[in-house]
Amino acid sequence: MICDGDRRWSYRDFDAWTNRIAHGLSALGLEKGDALALMSGNRAEFLAVYFACARLGLVCVPVNLLWRQGELSHVLKDSRARAAVVEAGLLAQFCAGLEDPAQLLGIVVIDGQAATAPDGIGDLPVLAFDALAAGQSSDIPDIAIEDRAPLSYLYTSGTTSAPKGVIGTHLAIYLESLGTAIDTCMTENDRLSVVLPLFHTAQLNALCTPAIAAGASMVIQRGFDATALHEAIENERISVLFALPMMIQQLVERQLAHRRNVSSLRLTVYAMAPMPEAELRRAIETFGCDFSLMFGQTEMSPVSTFFKPEHQLSHPGAVGTPAVNVQVAIMAPGGELLPTGATGEIVYRSPQTMAGYLHNPEATADAFCHGWFHSGDAGHFDADGILWFEDRFKDVIKTGGENVSSIEVELAVRAAYPDVLEVAAIGLPHQRWGEAITAVVVTQDGRSIDADTLLSAVRERLSPFKCPKAVIHVSELPKTATGKIEKAKLRRTYAAYYQ
Amino acid sequence: MICDGDRRWSYRDFDAWTNRIAHGLSALGLEKGDALALMSGNRAEFLAVYFACARLGLVCVPVNLLWRQGELSHVLKDSRARAAVVEAGLLAQFCAGLEDPAQLLGIVVIDGQAATAPDGIGDLPVLAFDALAAGQSSDIPDIAIEDRAPLSYLYTSGTTSAPKGVIGTHLAIYLESLGTAIDTCMTENDRLSVVLPLFHTAQLNALCTPAIAAGASMVIQRGFDATALHEAIENERISVLFALPMMIQQLVERQLAHRRNVSSLRLTVYAMAPMPEAELRRAIETFGCDFSLMFGQTEMSPVSTFFKPEHQLSHPGAVGTPAVNVQVAIMAPGGELLPTGATGEIVYRSPQTMAGYLHNPEATADAFCHGWFHSGDAGHFDADGILWFEDRFKDVIKTGGENVSSIEVELAVRAAYPDVLEVAAIGLPHQRWGEAITAVVVTQDGRSIDADTLLSAVRERLSPFKCPKAVIHVSELPKTATGKIEKAKLRRTYAAYYQ
Repeated sequence: MICDGDRRWSYRDFDAWTNRIAHGLSALGLEKGDALALMSGNRAEFLAVYFACARLGLVCVPVNLLWRQGELSHVLKDSRARAAVVEAGLLAQFCAGLEDPAQLLGIVVIDGQAATAPDGIGDLPVLAFDALAAGQSSDIPDIAIEDRAPLSYLYTSGTTSAPKGVIGTHLAIYLESLGTAIDTCMTENDRLSVVLPLFHTAQLNALCTPAIAAGASMVIQRGFDATALHEAIENERISVLFALPMMIQQLVERQLAHRRNVSSLRLTVYAMAPMPEAELRRAIETFGCDFSLMFGQTEMSPVSTFFKPEHQLSHPGAVGTPAVNVQVAIMAPGGELLPTGATGEIVYRSPQTMAGYLHNPEATADAFCHGWFHSGDAGHFDADGILWFEDRFKDVIKTGGENVSSIEVELAVRAAYPDVLEVAAIGLPHQRWGEAITAVVVTQDGRSIDADTLLSAVRERLSPFKCPKAVIHVSELPKTATGKIEKAKLRRTYAAYYQ
Repeated sequence: MICDGDRRWSYRDFDAWTNRIAHGLSALGLEKGDALALMSGNRAEFLAVYFACARLGLVCVPVNLLWRQGELSHVLKDSRARAAVVEAGLLAQFCAGLEDPAQLLGIVVIDGQAATAPDGIGDLPVLAFDALAAGQSSDIPDIAIEDRAPLSYLYTSGTTSAPKGVIGTHLAIYLESLGTAIDTCMTENDRLSVVLPLFHTAQLNALCTPAIAAGASMVIQRGFDATALHEAIENERISVLFALPMMIQQLVERQLAHRRNVSSLRLTVYAMAPMPEAELRRAIETFGCDFSLMFGQTEMSPVSTFFKPEHQLSHPGAVGTPAVNVQVAIMAPGGELLPTGATGEIVYRSPQTMAGYLHNPEATADAFCHGWFHSGDAGHFDADGILWFEDRFKDVIKTGGENVSSIEVELAVRAAYPDVLEVAAIGLPHQRWGEAITAVVVTQDGRSIDADTLLSAVRERLSPFKCPKAVIHVSELPKTATGKIEKAKLRRTYAAYYQ
């Protein structure tokens, strides 16, 4: 069942609706291979359009709602989108980014009257979403689609270049859905929370497609709201929660302040970064369910490793073991695979890898150099076969002739000083050290910080050469649209700190 | 972990062993695309050779140990096997079926000294299995294999023609392993019993490959022995049991006579045919675990539907809902898909279907006519979306102008008369009825049977026109090597019964 507020669909009904939408898109003139931009907040229509694309062989191009106008323009041009489905409230924003209305056959507006087209798009047809599907057949379109035909172009927010379109194939995303259903033990009886943005692969492919593969229900919320999600866990009997560590922290606070029945929860999946051990233990105690870190990237469709509940506490700070379908290895710069314990680039072989970057054969060739997909992350396997993420590969801090993993510093800072909410460890130019390790921190509620106390607590946890030389207290860290800390920007901002 | 008696392998060790075997097979001169005959009882080497084939791109041809010599000869010729791995105890039987020793590069003998080659195979090299892998590399062979490259030719024991080689592809079998892992909720914590023959797809692909996909352990036994299996459930803490209904019945008897700790069981999967409701209820009560019928055929790699535990008792006698990866429909002879409730041929669309029958384009084209794979089974979907198997498509009994599903008669006979162990309902030529429904039965321990009592009990359960006109009591039903009742043979034997 798919639940979106008071609207509920059985999968049978959802399937029929999806087919009607597909026939409606076909009637617009869209054909197999055409790209369709999809700009919407979380709602059932998002998923229905995604699967309608799959059935027609269209390529879905989800628009990140945090993109600036230039990024949106780039994506619409680069993807050669032939039509768009846009929420009424986002229509003006969409049209502002649409430089060439003539590239589109039409815009379908969700929740709008669509009677009056916005200015500046000429005579481009604008159609109401409900009118699109009305009167169409509920039968599956009779279109043969090849295994490796593209299902989506998901644009990654690069920190150094314009977003690149990751070509996701039917085969890759289908296999990912089955593999992650196994990794999460998803069943028909599960009920998954959908609060992270559907335009992001982490929500869309990492969790929603596995739920569909297993027949689990989904409870869609517009976005993260701790109160609403906390209520939904009780009222909708959520069994699988998917959230970021920061959200989990807020839910824990709420549950401690105002206890609800959360006994339906069996698994919380969190993404992006390991949770500090103390925080994880508190969350496990508070919710009484398993916790698993899911780690990956858009190019992997996206799950590459899965941190099993039983390893979370025995190997705190690691990122887990290879996901179903994925081989993980550690590679030296020359292409040689490295043994247990050695640090190198984390590389993957998997039927889940992207087909390539759109219109970018050079970047694609680089990404698959030596026959493996290059994550750009540095890490190592320990003797138990568990993967440790160390840093973005080019982000290792080189200090006094030693390589220091910035994540190790970050984990130590968080563990040492409970008031630290977020931290980025970066290397800044320094006459003596080459790069001086520097901790840029945000504190809980902006509390003041005693740098000496913090640093001496860190020194108890780390070898001296790994300790930060200074602490910079900021109110906010610069981040990309998908929440990655922009370390390059931090390095530029504080380049002269030790000069 | 893979357990075979006292021998135990972690998957890491098993993986390394498999690679050494693969390199050994490669050293024999085998190359991608070559077929390898595998003739062995259940043992870890069987699985290791199967996966070694997968890594080299060889095509594994498991030999059914119940084949007669002519069938073995046909399969060795038809598959163009280039080498064989054979258990020492089966070597004479293998060589008797090998008409042209020159087709092979060599024979590898499991558990044998292999010093002296058997007579009649000329100077064909014979090698001990342990020598094959000795000194070989544990690294995975560096061989690229296409998605749809064949992994196996599994020969189906036709009742009307020579066995046909079903071409199973890497993609089909891989997807089946993931799909069935989801359907059975298999996890790393599971321990699967392996007592059905590994040469049969039901054990090999339906259950063993999903166990590997999920990282579950396997406990291999040589074959079904109720005492040994009953003991193993307790001693090896089996959590997923895979057996035929007849075996389950024996296990229930044993457990009632001699109670063991079977609390580790969470799921019993049974194959081939629905269990009568009373038997199923008794088994559920005795073992306190879920029961699921798995239904399929070699051409589907093999699982096509899965009878979920929650439907077993609400829809007794049905066969379940479509498995993950599989679309199921009901087709009229002209290719039209039929609505809910209508009886027709059960057809499948799935990435799990075979690539075709080896050297048999006509049979392949027939099997995929109208774009769906034709099961040869008749059935219908009920309003709950649950599939009911009615009969082999051409096996429906036509009596007095009505079509009667023989399975319906069989279920009624079993339910009506507890002493009936097995029953085949067939139509025999009859002046008045065209075909007269006739029940051929085997009783528990050969007990005598009162035909009138049986028939009047059946009449309480079935419409009059569906009731058997007579009961034939036999000590044994004729069966194919894989346990299918040979109804055609029964019909021939009793053709003159009503004349």
